[in-house]
Amino acid sequence: MTDEIASGEDRLIARHFAPLATHPGAFGLTDDAAAVEPPPGCELVLKTDAIIGSIHFFENDPAGAVAQKALRVNLSDLAAKGAAPLGFLLSIALPKGTTEAWLAAFSDGLKSDIEQFQCPLFGGDTVKSPGVVMISITVVGSVPTGTMVKRGGAKVGDRILVTGTIGDAALGLKLRQDEGVAARWKLDAAMREHLTQRYLVPQPRNAIAEVLRTLANGGMDISDGLAGDLTKMCGASGVSAEIDASRVPLSIAAKAALAAAPALIEPILAGGDDYEVLAAIPPASLDQFMAAARAAGVPATDIGVITAGRDEPKFVWNGRQLDFARRSFSHF
Amino acid sequence: MTDEIASGEDRLIARHFAPLATHPGAFGLTDDAAAVEPPPGCELVLKTDAIIGSIHFFENDPAGAVAQKALRVNLSDLAAKGAAPLGFLLSIALPKGTTEAWLAAFSDGLKSDIEQFQCPLFGGDTVKSPGVVMISITVVGSVPTGTMVKRGGAKVGDRILVTGTIGDAALGLKLRQDEGVAARWKLDAAMREHLTQRYLVPQPRNAIAEVLRTLANGGMDISDGLAGDLTKMCGASGVSAEIDASRVPLSIAAKAALAAAPALIEPILAGGDDYEVLAAIPPASLDQFMAAARAAGVPATDIGVITAGRDEPKFVWNGRQLDFARRSFSHF
Repeated sequence: MTDEIASGEDRLIARHFAPLATHPGAFGLTDDAAAVEPPPGCELVLKTDAIIGSIHFFENDPAGAVAQKALRVNLSDLAAKGAAPLGFLLSIALPKGTTEAWLAAFSDGLKSDIEQFQCPLFGGDTVKSPGVVMISITVVGSVPTGTMVKRGGAKVGDRILVTGTIGDAALGLKLRQDEGVAARWKLDAAMREHLTQRYLVPQPRNAIAEVLRTLANGGMDISDGLAGDLTKMCGASGVSAEIDASRVPLSIAAKAALAAAPALIEPILAGGDDYEVLAAIPPASLDQFMAAARAAGVPATDIGVITAGRDEPKFVWNGRQLDFARRSFSHF
Repeated sequence: MTDEIASGEDRLIARHFAPLATHPGAFGLTDDAAAVEPPPGCELVLKTDAIIGSIHFFENDPAGAVAQKALRVNLSDLAAKGAAPLGFLLSIALPKGTTEAWLAAFSDGLKSDIEQFQCPLFGGDTVKSPGVVMISITVVGSVPTGTMVKRGGAKVGDRILVTGTIGDAALGLKLRQDEGVAARWKLDAAMREHLTQRYLVPQPRNAIAEVLRTLANGGMDISDGLAGDLTKMCGASGVSAEIDASRVPLSIAAKAALAAAPALIEPILAGGDDYEVLAAIPPASLDQFMAAARAAGVPATDIGVITAGRDEPKFVWNGRQLDFARRSFSHF
């Protein structure tokens, strides 16, 4: 009987989202709320991030990639905070004419990440959008109580580490906006593909969350640009920093683009969407951190040092100090 | 130093949202995530609901009322689940040209509700919207572990209770869409104002969360219409119900409108946006429940009984069984 009167919204949830709600506290999405208990001795770490069509992704991006970006920008925060994922809540606003095929690809993308990151769906809300697709995710993680890695914990003398490579997504966005830059940057097809993919789907570093939690004095994920996010970490910690910009890890593609167009150093260091981890590691723990990151398959690079004072972090490149027009991405 | 390079987004958060983040685990919104521990012996209850300009509210609605609606539609779920509010996360997408005055009124509206419902801001995300305002809130509450009031707990013989009055918001929406109906419904100014306000800002019933948790077999909030939501509760509980529609509590304004236009019985019972509580109370606990609701200042009315079987709940009105074209509101 209930099936007969089930609304379109209920059918949509039952078909595409209920199979993702594997945590017992999600009640298969048949209740109005989820019930979640942290593991013994742990507290919950909560974060919300939204992505909006035409602002954070292109409306013709594959739906599965959109779903993964929406979840991964949140998972990236859990990684940097040293938290293990428990699950997430999803709000999604869909324009008229959203197809079953789009929804199926969206939920398939989510399903794959739910399995990879062990982060099931706790609940959600599906509403109509008068315009673009809007997705807001709240991710729930856990840490032993009191051990969340803070922005404000960096100490003078700490080494500054970043994971992966920096600047790829900012260049990938420029490529999406203007394909002509590929020729000017002397990029081959593989390089173009690499940069475009890095913008399309971030690779959050949840594999090193635990070693960050045990070894990092401070940390955050790099979402608004390395320069601006390091400035935020230093500000919260009451310290400054010196970065050797030539040590900032770049992909082969970013190196090629930078060689052809040296002004790209600014979008590379300040452009955003990296979703790598920025961490302050005490020198005595550096070897242990590097070994653990290597064992987890996560590249990590020492790019500089936390210094005393409240000056903006210095970025030195080819012997001169970089002067950024804008250190970080902001929507406003 | 940090202030000088603070982005517009950071300034906006510092000015309008950081003062709302009074929970110590929100770190004054200076970190990337919040750390939250349930009270001893409790688990967390999590719910997310979004509201979208032009879909769930009018774009010229007062910003403070929009903020309160966004929070209260979530608080209403906590109430029905028997959970005490702990805090919330806010995602907000703002179109270009959003003014400081709008933001100030929005955060003032939130602040007033944060104090009234003891539900501070844990964190959030502020992004750009290409069109309308979108607000997604995830609210966090707590219950003693295992005691969340479920949709699926209603038992044969339970009395069916609703709080407040039903149908006002659905009529208020019709008034907003077409002022001409006020004359056809023979509404005076006070009645128009009552119905319009009931659509603008819900009154969640958090004052009876604890008595629901201790006495109700099943419950949910009424957001998509009494008829449809009761059908969902019965479906989840494997039961049916008989409602005496003449006992469904109506405001003076809704009674006047219904007397002038009897076809309004359908939007009143199936229209949505009530944000009242629907609960299944064992007959032996009915007097205790009514006394506790009265003491909490929350009107509650016995409108029918849970019955055996899997048929759709029956609504009997003036001796005939109502046959709904559509039992509940759905976006799709």
